[in-house]
Amino acid sequence: MNVINVGLIGAGTVGCGVIKVLSQNADIIEKRTGIRIELKRIADIDPDRKRPVEIPKSLFTTDAWDLIEDSSIPIVIELVGGTTVAKDLILGAVEKGKNVVTANKALIAHHGKEIFTAARKKGVDIGFEASVGGGIPIIKAIKEGFIANKILSIHGIMNGTSNYILSRMTEEGKEFNDVLRQAQIEGYAESDPSFDIDGIDAAHKLSILIMISFGVFLDFKKIYIKGIREITPIDISFADELGYKIKLLAIAKSRDEGLEAGVYPTLVQKGTQIADVSGVFNAIYIVGDSVGPTMLYGMGAGMMPTASAVLSDVVQIAKNIERGNSCTSLPKFYNNKNSSFLIPMSEITTKYYLRFQVEDRPGVLGQITGCLGQNNISIESVIQKGRHLGGGEVPVVIMTHEAKERDLLSSLQAIDNLAVVRARSIFIRIEEL
Amino acid sequence: MNVINVGLIGAGTVGCGVIKVLSQNADIIEKRTGIRIELKRIADIDPDRKRPVEIPKSLFTTDAWDLIEDSSIPIVIELVGGTTVAKDLILGAVEKGKNVVTANKALIAHHGKEIFTAARKKGVDIGFEASVGGGIPIIKAIKEGFIANKILSIHGIMNGTSNYILSRMTEEGKEFNDVLRQAQIEGYAESDPSFDIDGIDAAHKLSILIMISFGVFLDFKKIYIKGIREITPIDISFADELGYKIKLLAIAKSRDEGLEAGVYPTLVQKGTQIADVSGVFNAIYIVGDSVGPTMLYGMGAGMMPTASAVLSDVVQIAKNIERGNSCTSLPKFYNNKNSSFLIPMSEITTKYYLRFQVEDRPGVLGQITGCLGQNNISIESVIQKGRHLGGGEVPVVIMTHEAKERDLLSSLQAIDNLAVVRARSIFIRIEEL
Repeated sequence: MNVINVGLIGAGTVGCGVIKVLSQNADIIEKRTGIRIELKRIADIDPDRKRPVEIPKSLFTTDAWDLIEDSSIPIVIELVGGTTVAKDLILGAVEKGKNVVTANKALIAHHGKEIFTAARKKGVDIGFEASVGGGIPIIKAIKEGFIANKILSIHGIMNGTSNYILSRMTEEGKEFNDVLRQAQIEGYAESDPSFDIDGIDAAHKLSILIMISFGVFLDFKKIYIKGIREITPIDISFADELGYKIKLLAIAKSRDEGLEAGVYPTLVQKGTQIADVSGVFNAIYIVGDSVGPTMLYGMGAGMMPTASAVLSDVVQIAKNIERGNSCTSLPKFYNNKNSSFLIPMSEITTKYYLRFQVEDRPGVLGQITGCLGQNNISIESVIQKGRHLGGGEVPVVIMTHEAKERDLLSSLQAIDNLAVVRARSIFIRIEEL
Repeated sequence: MNVINVGLIGAGTVGCGVIKVLSQNADIIEKRTGIRIELKRIADIDPDRKRPVEIPKSLFTTDAWDLIEDSSIPIVIELVGGTTVAKDLILGAVEKGKNVVTANKALIAHHGKEIFTAARKKGVDIGFEASVGGGIPIIKAIKEGFIANKILSIHGIMNGTSNYILSRMTEEGKEFNDVLRQAQIEGYAESDPSFDIDGIDAAHKLSILIMISFGVFLDFKKIYIKGIREITPIDISFADELGYKIKLLAIAKSRDEGLEAGVYPTLVQKGTQIADVSGVFNAIYIVGDSVGPTMLYGMGAGMMPTASAVLSDVVQIAKNIERGNSCTSLPKFYNNKNSSFLIPMSEITTKYYLRFQVEDRPGVLGQITGCLGQNNISIESVIQKGRHLGGGEVPVVIMTHEAKERDLLSSLQAIDNLAVVRARSIFIRIEEL
């Protein structure tokens, strides 16, 4: 029996999950691999806090550097989060020749290249399976399972909070703010929810998947991001009538000209696998040139699923240590196009859902379709409901054929300037999966 | 640049897929790994057959042993199929110190232990990702992604032909035999379809997943297998009315007493991820004790998806060769309970869909429910439709609460002996996912 010692920095939710899973399953891991994973040291600023697992006090230190300096620990798990202290700790651990396992998507998205370069120089590994999709082994699937594929496209539901809010808005017909407040009370949304609902968290994960799928490290701020704050029950209801659901998707598509990449709400057809991903679940739908369409589905966050992913990396690195291997998991950046690789959103081509709030009188639809036609936008279908009883305005919903986004934006600008249009026009992109 | 030579035995559909994917993607594999995979030799009994890819004649041999004897080839891909010649070839290659990649589920299910033992002795690897779920990286997900989990249950749609037939029966309301004939004409079913529709192929795959999930090599003939020949449009229609679809599932459930394992048609609730897996797609729904519920979805067969899986193993082994590793993929059999581990079907507990064909007269339902009650089967709901116009008999459908299968079978035996019952009773198990 070979024992591999592990140090854990950060005994929060996921950290406690790691402790719990190890206490339950170290035996079966040993049966499967011949390796005993032992938690040697835990660093946390608050050892006394009440936790969902029993932890011997003797394991604790309040100084993370204690375990980074401990030469008997070859693997450090970083679960501190954030991009400042965590970065120093990871680079410090790497400098000391330690392998690192992290769930820190923001850090990898912003500083991954620097961290991987440092790791390669020191001959150590960085495991980051837990940074995307919680317990779903999506990093492994792309890096190893689909290694013989050119990845053609990625469509991910990768933020559980947003998906939970959209699912409840869909089921209950409620406004965004009401559902968000409820989700905060129930613990499904943070008190500051902006990372989740504004798409930033999903974009961090997308940039990681792009890194391993296309061999390119993107400048994070170049990724187009739009969250779900502006989604309304009326759009969800029209989408439903048209046979669609609204989902916040993280999207990457390989084109001859480069890469389309962005996080934004989309209409996806009901009955497709991705449309049926509800609540806090995550799913990543990937098309490869040989494997075809695939989807991986599971819990994208939480104490135990994330710990499952953290420990899959720990065990993999432990096996590598036993075999004398190193640097087996570091992504290669073989694509030198970098950010020039990104296709501007104005250049993408897709179908659109459009909603206009207009005066309820004859000729209005003609004015709108005229503006669309002048910009080469052709119409697939229109919903114009009968006159509303009280108000003087009605919604008009138009589904377009494929159109260039630049043309769409020009036409919307023209439409928004029409005297008969009462509110800024809404557009939501449609994804066909 | 490191070149690793590969030999291919069997240039049929999947073999041609391997050739095609390599010709398209050897460059990107090289960028990702630094390794060039080169197809050095191809063995097939018919080099001159028309194939969907161009293959230089010089690569061909009609004698598989030519490439097994070739010392410049460290990896042999076996795509011959069957359990006789293929076994000899694989054991011969292993004996020569070669790593083997195979898509041969029947061979692994029947002779896996012998093959893995031989490989371990010679210090070589056996890759078998392609044996289950086509291009879906399910073997890797279980063996590595979920390595820190006790696997609690597996529910797989793992035979595309059966799923295609059931999907079409559901959509079109047609009889099994009509759809089967149509599927044969369209190439979705073999001329001898029994491996697929009788559940044997799915059971082969199930036994492989059980092997890697539970560390046990089952005696294949001990697995309970029931195919889809007896599924009728009337049961599909009643299931639909009750909110279910009928799917052929390969099932394994870890219980305190041992393992439930079998392949059989089941009712699964509409709206669940697994119920929405249609046509030739495969999906494996797995619950782990830490990761929770997960599902992997994709194309379970075909030239290109299966080649994707074959090549993921080839690349993994090539990386291992470069690193000087061996035997990294061989499953460990740490569970010594072997087949005594299997719980007999008579001992399982589940809910049931029951259909009786009975005389259309008063008191019949009372007789049936009486037999059920005497055997501790309690009823959740009943559908008894109004009198049919022509005939003297009507169907009665009953959904039960959880019941022991032994009790159910006793009650059905009693019911089938009732004078008012006109045909053998139908029972289909219900799975709650």
